[in-house]
Amino acid sequence: MGEATRFGIMGCAGIARKVCRAIKLSPNATVVAVGSRSAEKAHRFIKDNGLPENTQVHGSYESLLDDPDVDAVYMPLPTSLHLRWGVAAASKGKHILLEKPTALSVAELDQILQACEANNVQFMDGTMWMHHPRTAKMHELLSQQHSHLFGQLKMVNSIASFYAKPDFLHNNIRVIPDLDALGALGDLGWYCIRFILWAADYYLPTTAVAFPNPVKNEAGLLLSCGASLHWENGTVATFHCSFLAHRTFEVAVVGSKGTLTMSDFVNPFDENSARFTFASESSFKELVDGCKPLPTNHVVSTELPQEACMISEFSRLVEAIKDGSKPEKKWPSISRKNQIVMDAVKDSIDKESKPVEIVG
Amino acid sequence: MGEATRFGIMGCAGIARKVCRAIKLSPNATVVAVGSRSAEKAHRFIKDNGLPENTQVHGSYESLLDDPDVDAVYMPLPTSLHLRWGVAAASKGKHILLEKPTALSVAELDQILQACEANNVQFMDGTMWMHHPRTAKMHELLSQQHSHLFGQLKMVNSIASFYAKPDFLHNNIRVIPDLDALGALGDLGWYCIRFILWAADYYLPTTAVAFPNPVKNEAGLLLSCGASLHWENGTVATFHCSFLAHRTFEVAVVGSKGTLTMSDFVNPFDENSARFTFASESSFKELVDGCKPLPTNHVVSTELPQEACMISEFSRLVEAIKDGSKPEKKWPSISRKNQIVMDAVKDSIDKESKPVEIVG
Repeated sequence: MGEATRFGIMGCAGIARKVCRAIKLSPNATVVAVGSRSAEKAHRFIKDNGLPENTQVHGSYESLLDDPDVDAVYMPLPTSLHLRWGVAAASKGKHILLEKPTALSVAELDQILQACEANNVQFMDGTMWMHHPRTAKMHELLSQQHSHLFGQLKMVNSIASFYAKPDFLHNNIRVIPDLDALGALGDLGWYCIRFILWAADYYLPTTAVAFPNPVKNEAGLLLSCGASLHWENGTVATFHCSFLAHRTFEVAVVGSKGTLTMSDFVNPFDENSARFTFASESSFKELVDGCKPLPTNHVVSTELPQEACMISEFSRLVEAIKDGSKPEKKWPSISRKNQIVMDAVKDSIDKESKPVEIVG
Repeated sequence: MGEATRFGIMGCAGIARKVCRAIKLSPNATVVAVGSRSAEKAHRFIKDNGLPENTQVHGSYESLLDDPDVDAVYMPLPTSLHLRWGVAAASKGKHILLEKPTALSVAELDQILQACEANNVQFMDGTMWMHHPRTAKMHELLSQQHSHLFGQLKMVNSIASFYAKPDFLHNNIRVIPDLDALGALGDLGWYCIRFILWAADYYLPTTAVAFPNPVKNEAGLLLSCGASLHWENGTVATFHCSFLAHRTFEVAVVGSKGTLTMSDFVNPFDENSARFTFASESSFKELVDGCKPLPTNHVVSTELPQEACMISEFSRLVEAIKDGSKPEKKWPSISRKNQIVMDAVKDSIDKESKPVEIVG
């Protein structure tokens, strides 16, 4: 085993606890510093999360970025701060694992990505489910090499929701326009769009049409919305994301020859094994009854939870850069497409469901 | 046990074989006659489907409707013939089990329903899954009395598709404008819309917006399309129906407190038992991981296949009318709402995805 990537955690948001554990679980990563706007908060985070006593405390983000022992930062800051601190981190030569949504717009994200490129640092967003071995297994079944099983993509549906408590709906950063202006679209719609792009092998749709009458809070922030996405060949995707509906992470991908479904795409029900269902070339039985063959349940085990798989992959790329490789372009490219589609959906929402052309 | 309802099968379409078997399986129904435009075809149907030799052969629909031994007709004719023959059957005092889609428009359906009412006959459409005991069990969980489990309806998605062979796409009556002008929308979208209405306790949505760029054949007939439906309280439903995608009958219903999913809503995978999944008040575990409680798999057994449950319910109503009851209004009322929403979706398709107001 080579060296471990030395992480600085930049901000003590709730999700940072999960990622802190993931870094600890990951064999090629370690937390060496925690930065917050208050040293006391950083200190408490270190204690609460069982980090070693010699973990460096930083009472400001600037100080964390100046720490020469930090290779990479994990950045769970509110979206509105991503541009400023993403660019700052890259300029200091820190590799960046950035929470989603990556920015308020692709124009902002592009500034972060340009700073990463100029400074030869790796960029990746925090979409954890991408790194689960289940995702790789499913990709195999949907891929060209198995086109006899799945055929051409025709339809994707994705739902991501959870029922937020009143306290969340009034005080959480994800519903405060100055902090996370994209609301449920940024927090949950991000996953739906990513899933759709993943299923479409990252071919961008040509048009986004938001569903009419999204639900907003008093501040005008999106609590529930959705859209349909369209490709020129007739493929359609739909998604719905909401802070107002029961915890649901349901997807269906339908090709000309196969169907894949999964009920926990963002967060697997079980940390060590995850399921999906795949049916191929099923047809009606005699008398248009039943179905044969039946869908098959697939179970994919993982030693590390998906967030630790993400940390391991990110750290592997960082170590490769230390050894002279160039940053992996796949990850920023995927983030960028995710952001482009999210921008188009937001634009269509703002234009009262007018179709918005997606330009890559 | 009372008397059995005496059915005349009016037209020898493929689906009639399935319903013929259902009538034979149903304890309160019997096939007494088969009518076709050719006596020879009717005769062959009787033989092929193991009906008794004394089953009456009719070489025309008129002749079947004049048969005094026939209480009720099962009518699997092409949609464009429903108006003429539906009205004719009702006028002859025959109860009508009419295949879906019930008509080309609600204006047509209303003429059929008026004829049924004027002649005191029962009307029901052939949406089989409505009669499966699974449907009743699910309804219980989603109903007001269990609002602590499901809460308020927020989102429904429904997909119904099968991959039609080239022969079907060129020759099947469901893709020939003069016979079934509604194509995939009439054949499969009907089920999606019914499922959505069922989940919404038959409250009509206020608006339908078709997805752009539906796929049509050379004759202009819909092979693949979809729409979103909207209620004033922010509830959203989406559906997609297609002759061009792999066999999929997937639904998800999301309330504020619960989620219901099912993968075989139109045709259960297994004739004698059917599944669905229900989760209630699930939330993230510590560290926004996993989920508790997990969704529960429900299995509902049925002695009779759903199509025989349909025949039994229809026949029960017919026998009650013989005993002096009035026709059950629930069934025509549900068909009518299904048709109203389908009309609105068709209208929105024809108007290039303009939102169409739904008027009940």
